[in-house]
Amino acid sequence: MTNDSKNKWIGFDLGGTKMLSTLYDSDFEVLGRRRKKTKGHEGQKAGLERIAQTIRETLEDAGINTSELSGIGIGCPGPLDLDEGILLDAHNLGWYDVPLKKFLEKEFDCPAIIANDVDLGVYGESRFGAGVDARCVIGIFPGTGIGGGCVYEGNIFRGTKSSCMEIGHIQVMPNGPRCACGQKGCLEAVASRMAISSAAAQAAYRGQAPYLKEHGGTDLSEIRSGVLAKSVNNGDTVVEEIIKQASQQIGVAVSSLINLMAPDIIILGGGLVEAMPELIKGTVAKTAQKNILSSYEGTYKIKVAELGDDAAVLGAGAWAEYNFK
Amino acid sequence: MTNDSKNKWIGFDLGGTKMLSTLYDSDFEVLGRRRKKTKGHEGQKAGLERIAQTIRETLEDAGINTSELSGIGIGCPGPLDLDEGILLDAHNLGWYDVPLKKFLEKEFDCPAIIANDVDLGVYGESRFGAGVDARCVIGIFPGTGIGGGCVYEGNIFRGTKSSCMEIGHIQVMPNGPRCACGQKGCLEAVASRMAISSAAAQAAYRGQAPYLKEHGGTDLSEIRSGVLAKSVNNGDTVVEEIIKQASQQIGVAVSSLINLMAPDIIILGGGLVEAMPELIKGTVAKTAQKNILSSYEGTYKIKVAELGDDAAVLGAGAWAEYNFK
Repeated sequence: MTNDSKNKWIGFDLGGTKMLSTLYDSDFEVLGRRRKKTKGHEGQKAGLERIAQTIRETLEDAGINTSELSGIGIGCPGPLDLDEGILLDAHNLGWYDVPLKKFLEKEFDCPAIIANDVDLGVYGESRFGAGVDARCVIGIFPGTGIGGGCVYEGNIFRGTKSSCMEIGHIQVMPNGPRCACGQKGCLEAVASRMAISSAAAQAAYRGQAPYLKEHGGTDLSEIRSGVLAKSVNNGDTVVEEIIKQASQQIGVAVSSLINLMAPDIIILGGGLVEAMPELIKGTVAKTAQKNILSSYEGTYKIKVAELGDDAAVLGAGAWAEYNFK
Repeated sequence: MTNDSKNKWIGFDLGGTKMLSTLYDSDFEVLGRRRKKTKGHEGQKAGLERIAQTIRETLEDAGINTSELSGIGIGCPGPLDLDEGILLDAHNLGWYDVPLKKFLEKEFDCPAIIANDVDLGVYGESRFGAGVDARCVIGIFPGTGIGGGCVYEGNIFRGTKSSCMEIGHIQVMPNGPRCACGQKGCLEAVASRMAISSAAAQAAYRGQAPYLKEHGGTDLSEIRSGVLAKSVNNGDTVVEEIIKQASQQIGVAVSSLINLMAPDIIILGGGLVEAMPELIKGTVAKTAQKNILSSYEGTYKIKVAELGDDAAVLGAGAWAEYNFK
């Protein structure tokens, strides 16, 4: 139990390219905010110092003393040791076995907790966004891969040491396309933004998606959510079909998730969903509805995320509050 | 909080053909036990009276007064309203909207709780069997269908009103064989004992499984776990192959469950598994191991259930204790 006069929380989102730090008061109003490039290549010692520096500047921004801080929540990519607070393997950053919790607790003399960044995004939505008041919230975020998370009865659903809810690696197509994880037919191999962009690039190359060909080309790394949405809106029906098919695959996975975990709310989020919320949500919902056991009809809602990029950092601050208040 | 001198619990398993009642003391030693046919066709009013009578006889057996009873846990098939304690739809029995909890609480003047029978089997294993001391236990029971349940941090994992963990209805084969639920390609449509018996009957008919043909015939309702095991042991390699394939499908579903829920222990149970524990467990484990994300390697164990038919009734008694002690 912290002193009530403190009750100020840092939410931190450690991403592959940027880090974002926000200071919240007890009502989760923003008191200060800082963003820096992560610069993983500078190594993990420099990285830890950079994280600390970003938090210090956030406090300075708000005119708050370190001693007034109640706790820090930090969202991280990759496998984690949740209890020890160790970032085990962030290969994007080239960082391994980083004792984040210990470092931050020493540096700021307050409790710190780490969690998977996607889990914290779902936690943020469950506290302040599309999942408020639900008993069980599942979040699905199609991007380069497909991230997932679950908040069950107020807590992040987790493994013994690690996070879980790897929704992108539900097998949906036996002997399907190879996934980044090495398996075949994982959901993210057929329905991530990357899988969609790849199929759309082929359509553009074959001349079946003239708008996309002209405005996005055939380079995967250029075919992002915005141009995909514009391509659909400008009559590239093949691209629309590709996105529908991917959404159907997500819908089948959602139906398995409903049959398994009976969530109240399923939240779809990320840039792709934000660019085409109705098309994707509508298709996912229709497919899920068709595939669930009849006894789960009417027991859930499928919604679009409401907090955008803020979900994870807000979730991180709120998760610290939940654990340390 | 009950009086410590009481601390006696009824576990009750309401099955489609039989009901089983057991009285436990605080160490879950058996004090009394009764079994009766369910006789669902006699209607639900008679059914409730029969349940009460079975419990009364169990108490008499043990020489225990109704006033000494601390609580009743009862495992039921079909969709339930867990909080209200209503058996919503037991079509096997022809019973609908049966207010079990209310009836038992009035009849025995002690708290009662209902739960899905498979969930209680997993709960029993988690308290006294193959899942003791695990943080997250998932149970899978291939039979006529494929039942599933999960105990997460000491509690049965559940939906808002209903049970969940319908592992048999994970979709494993797009456009696969039709399932009893109306969908296609559900796990239980390809890997239940029923699916296995059906494929084995075809092999027998075609003359590819001579032992089975002679000792089991080609009638599905005669091809049960025992004769399938004997057929394998007596050289029907096609039948062995059928069971391996089904176990591989279960293994793929298990790998999705590990990627999603990161259980410590996965328990395989039921008559089919008991008849061929090594063949089924070995194949499931090998397939799961091949299909999980590498970060989950070594984080789980796959085990065979230890409590047999007693799991659900023991789980029912222990679940009452957990909720009411």
